[in-house]
Amino acid sequence: MLVKPCIPAGFMELLPEEQIVFNSMLNTIKNAYERFGFTPIETPAIEFSEVLFAKAGGETEKQIYNFTRGDKEYCLHFDLTVPLARYVAEHFNDLTFPFRRYQLQKVWRAERPQRGRFREFYQCDIDVIGSTNPLIDAEIVSVINSVFIELNLGGFVVSINNRKLMSGFIASLGLKESSQDILRLIDKIEKQDRSSLSDEMVSLGATEEIAKQIFDFVEIDGTNDEIVAKLKALKNKDELFLTGLNELETVVSGIKSLGVPDKNYKIDLKIARGLDYYTGTVYETFLTEHGNFGSVCSGGRFDNLASYYTDEKLPGVGISIGLTRLFSQLKADGFFAKSQSVPSKVLITQMDSRYLEKCLEIASKLRTSGINTEVYLEEERIGKQFKYANKLGIPYVIVIGEEEFTKDIITFKDMSTGSQEQKTLEEIIDKLK
Amino acid sequence: MLVKPCIPAGFMELLPEEQIVFNSMLNTIKNAYERFGFTPIETPAIEFSEVLFAKAGGETEKQIYNFTRGDKEYCLHFDLTVPLARYVAEHFNDLTFPFRRYQLQKVWRAERPQRGRFREFYQCDIDVIGSTNPLIDAEIVSVINSVFIELNLGGFVVSINNRKLMSGFIASLGLKESSQDILRLIDKIEKQDRSSLSDEMVSLGATEEIAKQIFDFVEIDGTNDEIVAKLKALKNKDELFLTGLNELETVVSGIKSLGVPDKNYKIDLKIARGLDYYTGTVYETFLTEHGNFGSVCSGGRFDNLASYYTDEKLPGVGISIGLTRLFSQLKADGFFAKSQSVPSKVLITQMDSRYLEKCLEIASKLRTSGINTEVYLEEERIGKQFKYANKLGIPYVIVIGEEEFTKDIITFKDMSTGSQEQKTLEEIIDKLK
Repeated sequence: MLVKPCIPAGFMELLPEEQIVFNSMLNTIKNAYERFGFTPIETPAIEFSEVLFAKAGGETEKQIYNFTRGDKEYCLHFDLTVPLARYVAEHFNDLTFPFRRYQLQKVWRAERPQRGRFREFYQCDIDVIGSTNPLIDAEIVSVINSVFIELNLGGFVVSINNRKLMSGFIASLGLKESSQDILRLIDKIEKQDRSSLSDEMVSLGATEEIAKQIFDFVEIDGTNDEIVAKLKALKNKDELFLTGLNELETVVSGIKSLGVPDKNYKIDLKIARGLDYYTGTVYETFLTEHGNFGSVCSGGRFDNLASYYTDEKLPGVGISIGLTRLFSQLKADGFFAKSQSVPSKVLITQMDSRYLEKCLEIASKLRTSGINTEVYLEEERIGKQFKYANKLGIPYVIVIGEEEFTKDIITFKDMSTGSQEQKTLEEIIDKLK
Repeated sequence: MLVKPCIPAGFMELLPEEQIVFNSMLNTIKNAYERFGFTPIETPAIEFSEVLFAKAGGETEKQIYNFTRGDKEYCLHFDLTVPLARYVAEHFNDLTFPFRRYQLQKVWRAERPQRGRFREFYQCDIDVIGSTNPLIDAEIVSVINSVFIELNLGGFVVSINNRKLMSGFIASLGLKESSQDILRLIDKIEKQDRSSLSDEMVSLGATEEIAKQIFDFVEIDGTNDEIVAKLKALKNKDELFLTGLNELETVVSGIKSLGVPDKNYKIDLKIARGLDYYTGTVYETFLTEHGNFGSVCSGGRFDNLASYYTDEKLPGVGISIGLTRLFSQLKADGFFAKSQSVPSKVLITQMDSRYLEKCLEIASKLRTSGINTEVYLEEERIGKQFKYANKLGIPYVIVIGEEEFTKDIITFKDMSTGSQEQKTLEEIIDKLK
């Protein structure tokens, strides 16, 4: 009896032609991260539950894939931030700070599968640990800028805000105690109507007038310089507000020095990030030429990464790209052109299997020159061999027949134009390299 | 109360300078696989147990990380071959055959941790599915040859045998029924003494004389051509033997056409591979300049990949490199020279934080030219900044001071020689590219 071959819902599995595109996106992100000096680490997929849950709890804990072996409970990591905290605490004495690491790994969450939610997905994270310097926050925007220019998905905007500025402003309205809760409400501003948000603010101790002041504040708009000027003009005396404003100004001026085009970043006081974890700069990134993707790259600054594992205070800043979700959204959007299904640049075909030996020799020479080469090894009509190249999207085909076998000349076909030429192997290598 | 940050035994976690080496080995393998036209696929880490265990059982099943969610049992994949079988059967109509895929992923086995055994490890697999052509078996040796030349681990030998040849020889001795069991004994020939192996063969129906004939047979030695000649000279009439001999001859001649140096492969009749799964060519690979690593790359030809999932007959051939184990052996051997801990090619330092803006501008230009660049953003004495570059192994340092700030000239230091020069940014970009 046959078993039906299938995978669980919520897992993304790609055909080769899609996998090639996915891998190239992953590689683009990796290269951009390395260009800014981030160094790779990789942590085990399985960790002790008691270690990873030192911090987590509630909603997160329910979404974990966990299991018991012997007397220990283990789990699959559900993000890369908690493992980073554990890693930095564990290897503290072997690391050099500020520690700039990237990490591109799958994480797992036992969520109910739904459109755009995956149980297994790639996170592409960077963090800089061990410095409070706001210029690092600026550099992070430059990294995001490089990544999304190189991914070539059309226009994008990195929205930037500062949680100190926001909390300070809320505190100056006499709502210091509720500031986290009010930030969570601001985070919903694009999804929920003002009057119900206003009601919720009132239930947190604001008056309707104060709620309106908050809405007016987060709506402050203009160029980045104009927004900074308007914030200064408020003459707000709250110390946290002023620290935040100062950080925001440094970040924006650093981003400018780093040559990030104006159109690619913007102060947006509506970006609050729901998580209490963030304590300074926060980021979200939006694509401008695609439908409702939501933020495709988010993060922010935090005061202390690993307080559950070490007494060392570890401030830092980081971002994450959820590549599996982004890829699936782009795919659903019909964004990807049909790509090759194999990495081969050239297929060597033969008119007769007697020439196979010659084909293998040529293949070996092409490969030694670094050219991805496949030989059609089966005995088939030449037409079928060409069809195979076409189907897989291999751009060039070499044909070895009687003439090519005896002379040192090779028939070389460009599959996209259909044009066919006689060339020497050296000419072909020059062309393909 | 702090939680001790640690990971379970049997998991390999690397420091950045080791991770960089590991990743570069992984990348070398990937590039070699692609050069032969293998295409990437990736399968979920988690699969339905009833699907993955359609084939497995016994010992394997005990080593699985499995868990129940709702009414379904899931498990982490324990190799990449069963997922490949499931993938090919599931996507059969969307794939083009012969299907040449590579897959570099972690797999998990709940083994008792011991030296050289990991519970989480990378497998680097290639398989060609859908053809019985022995020239593919030859090409696989050429792939192994490229991988191990490019990994640059010193000398290596790919040992090649053919299970049909072996089974046919054993059958010709009147032991057809016991041939699998006898092959398993031959597989132990390097670890177990002859007399006890001979006793076991006798218990399987051989006489002592026949056991000696088997030992003599597997000891046949010489150059590859001499071994083939000696095998032919046996005048063995067993049909399976003759098919195997013919395949072996084709494989060896194909390997020669592919330009693999003679010293890098060898027919070895002692290589039997314990698994019944293999039905033709089998491979093991040994490093000649390292201690007892065992085979670092093994595999072989099989008749039918996915009989549990589909009625389509899918013959194929493949190999696997266990990279985590290989890396840990090389590391234990002291093989790796100290490497950089970051991918940065250059660190930009400053005499005074007033020059930071200038540093960011220069960094941006270097990065746009594709040069991995880090800026030292903290306010520290220049000596401390140089120490940082030294510690991380960053090869070049740029210094921005008063003169560099005002003029368009940059101090550029080679950290390996200590030599320091004044250069323009364009000269530096040319040098670093």
